[in-house]
Amino acid sequence: MKKKPVTGMKDVLPEEARIRDYVQSLAREVYSGFGFSDIETPCVEHIENLLSNQGGENEKLIFKILKRGEKLNMAEAKEENDLTDCGLRYDLTLPLSRYYANNASSLPTPFKALQMGYVFRADRPQKGRFRQFMQCDIDILADPTYLAEVELITATTTLLGRLGFEDFTVRINDRRILRAMAECCGFDSDKCDLAFIILDKMDKIGVDGVREELISSGFSAESADKYLALMEGVSGGISGVRKMCEALEGFIDEDVCKNLSTIMSLASESKSVPFDIVFDPSLVRGMGYYTGTIFEIEVAQFGSSVAGGGRYDEMIGKFTGQKVCAVGFSIGFERIITILLDQKFKVPTQKDAVAILLEKGLPEDRCTDAMKKATQLRSEGRRVLVVWANKNKKFQKEQLKEAGYEEFIDYYAEEFKK
Amino acid sequence: MKKKPVTGMKDVLPEEARIRDYVQSLAREVYSGFGFSDIETPCVEHIENLLSNQGGENEKLIFKILKRGEKLNMAEAKEENDLTDCGLRYDLTLPLSRYYANNASSLPTPFKALQMGYVFRADRPQKGRFRQFMQCDIDILADPTYLAEVELITATTTLLGRLGFEDFTVRINDRRILRAMAECCGFDSDKCDLAFIILDKMDKIGVDGVREELISSGFSAESADKYLALMEGVSGGISGVRKMCEALEGFIDEDVCKNLSTIMSLASESKSVPFDIVFDPSLVRGMGYYTGTIFEIEVAQFGSSVAGGGRYDEMIGKFTGQKVCAVGFSIGFERIITILLDQKFKVPTQKDAVAILLEKGLPEDRCTDAMKKATQLRSEGRRVLVVWANKNKKFQKEQLKEAGYEEFIDYYAEEFKK
Repeated sequence: MKKKPVTGMKDVLPEEARIRDYVQSLAREVYSGFGFSDIETPCVEHIENLLSNQGGENEKLIFKILKRGEKLNMAEAKEENDLTDCGLRYDLTLPLSRYYANNASSLPTPFKALQMGYVFRADRPQKGRFRQFMQCDIDILADPTYLAEVELITATTTLLGRLGFEDFTVRINDRRILRAMAECCGFDSDKCDLAFIILDKMDKIGVDGVREELISSGFSAESADKYLALMEGVSGGISGVRKMCEALEGFIDEDVCKNLSTIMSLASESKSVPFDIVFDPSLVRGMGYYTGTIFEIEVAQFGSSVAGGGRYDEMIGKFTGQKVCAVGFSIGFERIITILLDQKFKVPTQKDAVAILLEKGLPEDRCTDAMKKATQLRSEGRRVLVVWANKNKKFQKEQLKEAGYEEFIDYYAEEFKK
Repeated sequence: MKKKPVTGMKDVLPEEARIRDYVQSLAREVYSGFGFSDIETPCVEHIENLLSNQGGENEKLIFKILKRGEKLNMAEAKEENDLTDCGLRYDLTLPLSRYYANNASSLPTPFKALQMGYVFRADRPQKGRFRQFMQCDIDILADPTYLAEVELITATTTLLGRLGFEDFTVRINDRRILRAMAECCGFDSDKCDLAFIILDKMDKIGVDGVREELISSGFSAESADKYLALMEGVSGGISGVRKMCEALEGFIDEDVCKNLSTIMSLASESKSVPFDIVFDPSLVRGMGYYTGTIFEIEVAQFGSSVAGGGRYDEMIGKFTGQKVCAVGFSIGFERIITILLDQKFKVPTQKDAVAILLEKGLPEDRCTDAMKKATQLRSEGRRVLVVWANKNKKFQKEQLKEAGYEEFIDYYAEEFKK
């Protein structure tokens, strides 16, 4: 028998489990305050859906499940996909799209969904990256307006604030601005996605690195320079959006700029915690399915993104045949847990916990008294552990204190021998 | 693209998700009050562990996961198990045993674990039975005494009471009594397990059916009759335990009977909600790994078991090499959800929910006012939905009322045209 969990997956110890529960219930509380409804989709998804080109690189990381019974025909199987009919989901967005297509008639319009669940990717194991990890997504379906983006941003920043994060920045951009920038600079429209993948490396390899890689990938130096110049000198405020849009005249619909400005302005005005919202034309975000607004949240003290999302108006239509617009925001659940663990975060508890220690050999009637006492304290909302006393009771109590038990009640056998 | 979930799994709609969340958080609250710590194990488990004969029939229902990359060698694979290195867990008990073996040095003694998570069985789909379903288990490890059973029974009945269930009965027995009964009646000790499987059908096929099947399975009529006579006339109280133990003299250790009586007496005395606890020598419970006490809870109005468990002192030792005793209780999570849905159960909410309706074309400054109003109400703990008004606003409000929004605030565009 193997004691360790399977490669890349982990056993969650009680200390971490407490924090995970806390973040999940806070997320549920905050998001429900914004009218998001909890939903669940199965961990297992049709292999056809998983391999439908919605997942980009993630499709290479699928845990595939063997066909069962007579359906499994090893002798005639020619390739891997002959052996499998389903697999573990690699994100929550694809299952949400299927869910909406399957259940739209029972759901309100617009539909505001909260989904928390495990996803699975057979990635190369490395520190802080797991093959089973929690995702926590909010999505608004069938609302094409800026109201959806504003609600997502306000909800997510409220949650981060409630978790004790301070000093964070919402970076925002629009895929249509990126595309207009690329066109305006003469990038081949077929190769835009490649250009975006390179531009997404800006914070890793810097402006010079990006310029070099663009050129070595076949883009002209002139185009690359024009693109990089477009980004420079654009401020992060609404005036930056205006300036960019003026520079892109003829390549972009004015409504795109107006929409982005409205989101920035409304999100600033309706926030519940302090944060900056900045226009960032260098923001790309990897997923190919984004079609409009994209956003990310960075917390200064951790120097990394803790949430991200964007609009994907084309995905659900692939299931329904009819376009259903959608926009989502996902917090980096595992990243946030790691930060809270590093900070030695303590989950707030309301009432003192009590440990009742029973000395071995305690007569049954005294045992009954102890259990009745426990029942009474629990009915008052106290956490009560009833446990046999060890020989080294002092050490035992120290350990119990570490586990959060602050009050002790001893039931001695001797008292009753007397 | 396929719209339906994979066979036997389901999309959880918001109404059901609300109830599931509620039951889960109530379970967490109640069990944490008894000192149980939340833990998590991965959904994916080593195939060697899953196929180690701990799971009985469930091992035939495993969703097996295909090996990845170079490890998958289709050409040389001779049997199904050459293609797989892991699979989805079919219960939470096996992963808990592995977890304890892997982490014992970081865990308190005794260890009281709460585990809620999905398990997967490729069972024949049928009404109310799913291939992915939630299990909710509490287990006490490394406490060999009756205290563990009493805590499990008190905790589980408290939870059922909090969920609004009334009039339930805890049926209790001990595998060692069953074994002594079988020996005393001259059943072949190698064939005891087969006898128990037959005896477990008592409530389905009745005394006569059981007698017939015992005989047709090779047990003597004399043995069968002696066994059935032993069960008859034994009352459900502690006196019944005593009577049974007298009848089994020479075949059973007196401590077994004393232990069972103490559990029954302490659990009766320390209960937080009314229930009966009865000795039931016909209780068998299917899982082969039980070694001592076994129990089940029935709610009269639903006529079926809503929770069950027992002591399994031998399983963890298979991982650790050292015996670690254990006892667990599992509520029938999906069964309870079905009952609550059938009862049209409404999750208690604390404050009224508000819907803010924005008329289309509302100027941006009025939109800002509306968002600020929403932020303020949410900071007071209200649930607030901000949504565009439809043309048929009356119908929209009716639907919102059904979704739980009881107060409405309208922001009209006209006001500001004036």
